[in-house]
Amino acid sequence: MTTRKILTEKRVLSALLACAFLITLLISGFAEAANGMPPKRKPRVSPLLLEAQESFAPLPDKPIFKKDNPGLNAKLSLGKMLFFDTRLSKSNVFSCNSCHNLATGGVDNNQFSTGHKWQIGGRNAPTVLNASLHVAQFWDGRAEDVEAQAQGPILAGVEMGATKELVIKRLESIPQYVTLFKEAYPDDKKPLTYKHVGDAIGAFERMLITPSRFDIYLKGHENALANAEKKGLKTFMEKGCGSCHDGMGIGGHGYRKFGLHGTPKNMKDKGRYEVTKDKEDINVFKVPSLRNIELTYPYFHDGRHWTLEAAVKDMGKYQLGEKLSDKEVASIVIFLKSLTGSPPKRLIPILPPSTATTPIPDRN
Amino acid sequence: MTTRKILTEKRVLSALLACAFLITLLISGFAEAANGMPPKRKPRVSPLLLEAQESFAPLPDKPIFKKDNPGLNAKLSLGKMLFFDTRLSKSNVFSCNSCHNLATGGVDNNQFSTGHKWQIGGRNAPTVLNASLHVAQFWDGRAEDVEAQAQGPILAGVEMGATKELVIKRLESIPQYVTLFKEAYPDDKKPLTYKHVGDAIGAFERMLITPSRFDIYLKGHENALANAEKKGLKTFMEKGCGSCHDGMGIGGHGYRKFGLHGTPKNMKDKGRYEVTKDKEDINVFKVPSLRNIELTYPYFHDGRHWTLEAAVKDMGKYQLGEKLSDKEVASIVIFLKSLTGSPPKRLIPILPPSTATTPIPDRN
Repeated sequence: MTTRKILTEKRVLSALLACAFLITLLISGFAEAANGMPPKRKPRVSPLLLEAQESFAPLPDKPIFKKDNPGLNAKLSLGKMLFFDTRLSKSNVFSCNSCHNLATGGVDNNQFSTGHKWQIGGRNAPTVLNASLHVAQFWDGRAEDVEAQAQGPILAGVEMGATKELVIKRLESIPQYVTLFKEAYPDDKKPLTYKHVGDAIGAFERMLITPSRFDIYLKGHENALANAEKKGLKTFMEKGCGSCHDGMGIGGHGYRKFGLHGTPKNMKDKGRYEVTKDKEDINVFKVPSLRNIELTYPYFHDGRHWTLEAAVKDMGKYQLGEKLSDKEVASIVIFLKSLTGSPPKRLIPILPPSTATTPIPDRN
Repeated sequence: MTTRKILTEKRVLSALLACAFLITLLISGFAEAANGMPPKRKPRVSPLLLEAQESFAPLPDKPIFKKDNPGLNAKLSLGKMLFFDTRLSKSNVFSCNSCHNLATGGVDNNQFSTGHKWQIGGRNAPTVLNASLHVAQFWDGRAEDVEAQAQGPILAGVEMGATKELVIKRLESIPQYVTLFKEAYPDDKKPLTYKHVGDAIGAFERMLITPSRFDIYLKGHENALANAEKKGLKTFMEKGCGSCHDGMGIGGHGYRKFGLHGTPKNMKDKGRYEVTKDKEDINVFKVPSLRNIELTYPYFHDGRHWTLEAAVKDMGKYQLGEKLSDKEVASIVIFLKSLTGSPPKRLIPILPPSTATTPIPDRN
C-alpha cells in the first residue's frame, strides 16, 4: 500500500464520518419535531396571543360524544330529523328548531320563546351551537348535558306541550323512525324510548360546533384577527371579562351571580336558586358562552337587551363595577363579533310521513 | 393493361361503391337520430304507458321563471333566505317555511295552519312543491302565480300578521339584505320593495320541482313503476280520476266543483265563489296536484281526511258518483305513492343578524 493510497482512504473515512454526523443531526431534528418538541428557534408570539392562549382554548376539531351515547351515523341522522320534527309537539307547530333555529345562530331571536297556545317561556332561549361543551344546560344548569336538556322542552306545557306517551306513540306509528331507532341503538332491546329521543337529539347537537377566526388566532395565526379586533380582545381581557367568559366556550363553564356590583333592575327570576333553594344561588346563572354572540340577541336570561353595546355596558356596571366608556364598549363589541363562527353546512332533512295510526295534532 | 388488372380495378371500384353506400346509410341513420325521428324498429310501448303519456306529462328538467322575474343567482339566494326568515312575521315566530315546511312535503301537515296569536287559517295550507306549475295559486286561484301568492300570508292577520311597512323597515335595517336586493334587482332604482320580496320568494319556489319515478315512467321507462303501481295507474285512469288530475302537475291546472254528485258534508267554505261571487263558482276549488300527495295530508281544502284511502273514497263518491271498492281504493293509493318526488337537496340558509335599528318582534 502506498502512502498516497492510505491518505486517500483516510479522506474517504473522514468524509463518511462527517456524513454520518450530519445524518444523525438531521434524524434527531426530525425526531424532535415528531415528538412535538419546540423548534430550536421560536417564532415570535405576541404577548396578547400568549395571554389569550392562557385564558381561552380553540374548539375541538371533532365533536365530543358521551361514552354511553356514541355518535353512530344512524343516530346523528335520526337526531337531526327529530330536531326538525314538529310531531314532537302536541300541536304539530313547534320543533326544537323553532326556538333553536339553525338559520339564526341556534336561537329564535325573541325575548322569550312562543310555545303551545301562544304561551310564553320564562327565559331567553339559549343557543344550541356549541352548547354541548358547557358545564351544564339551561340558564340554571338544571340539566347535566344536551342529551338530558333535549328531553325538557318537548314536555314543557308552555313550550311543545307533549307527553312522553304521545311522542312515543307518534314515532312508533312511523316505520322509518322505528327502523332508524333500531339502527341508532343496535344493542338495545327497546330502541324506541323517550330517553333515546333525547340521546339522539343530543348526539346531533354535539355536531353543532362553530369554529371562528378567533380559534385560528388562538392556534397561533396572529393575522386571523384584524388590529381592531385584537385591540378589543386586549380591552376584554384587561377589564376582566375573560375571568368569567373563559375557556373553550368563552363562557359556559361556570356560574356567577348576575349583579356582583349592585342588583340589576327587574330581577324577578332568581336563577339557580329556583333549582337549589340555596340562598347563595339567588340571581346566579350559568355564564353564557360568547361564541356567536353577535347572532344570539336579545341578551341575558331575560333578553332585556337587543344590542351588544347595551349588554356589554351592563356587564361593566353590574359584574365589573365599572362604567365602561363608549369607546371601550365599542372596542369589546368589535372583538366579540370575531367570535361568530362558521356553522357547518347542513341539509334540510326530509322527514318520513305519518301513517293512519299516527295521533293527529292537538292545538288545545 | 392486362385482363387481370382490369378485373382487380373493377373489384376495387365495387368495393369502394359498397363502402360509400354503407357510409351514406350510416350517416342518414345518424341524421335521423339527431333529428329526433323515430328509429326504424320501434321499441314496444305498452298501451298503458301510451295512454298515460296522453294524459300526463313529466316535470320540466329546469325551473321555469317568469320573463319579468328571471332566476338570477342572487335572487334565488335572497328568495330562499326570505322564505326561511321569521322576521317577515310580526311576532318573529313564523316564516313561509313554518306552514310550507320543506322537511315535510312543503306543508305543515295540520288541518289548518296556526298563525299570529294562535289564530287559525281557514283552509288547508297547500304544498309549495311544484306549485309554480299550477294555473293559479291558493285553493280559490285568487293569486296569479307564486310571486303574487308569496305576498299574501305575510300580511294576513291570522297568518304572519305583518304590514308592508314593517317588512321593509326590518329588511332595510339589515345591510346584507340591502346588498342582496341590489344584486337581485340590478336594473331597479329601488331594489328593496315589497313586490320584490314576493318576486324573490316566488323565484326560489320555482326551483322546488320534485321529479318522481312516475316521470321516469312517462319518459318511456316501463320498469320505473312496479306492477302494482301500474295496476293502480290503470284503475286511476279507468275510473276517470285523470280527467281532472292531469297534465304536468297531475292536477293543478283547472277548477272543479267539489261535489259533482251530491254535496259533501260541512261545506261551509264556498271556494272560488268567495272571489268571483258567481253562483257557478259555489264549492268550486282548484283541482289540487297529486304530486307528493303521500306527504301532504290532511286532504282537501278543509283538511277533512287524514288518510289517502279516505280521500280517494270521497273523490269516488262525490266526483265520480261511484262507490269505489276497498281493493280499487288501495290500488289507486299504491299508484299515488309513486308520485312522491325527490326534493332537491337544500342547505339550511344562514340569515344575517338584525341591527340596532331593526324593529323588534311584536307578539300582540
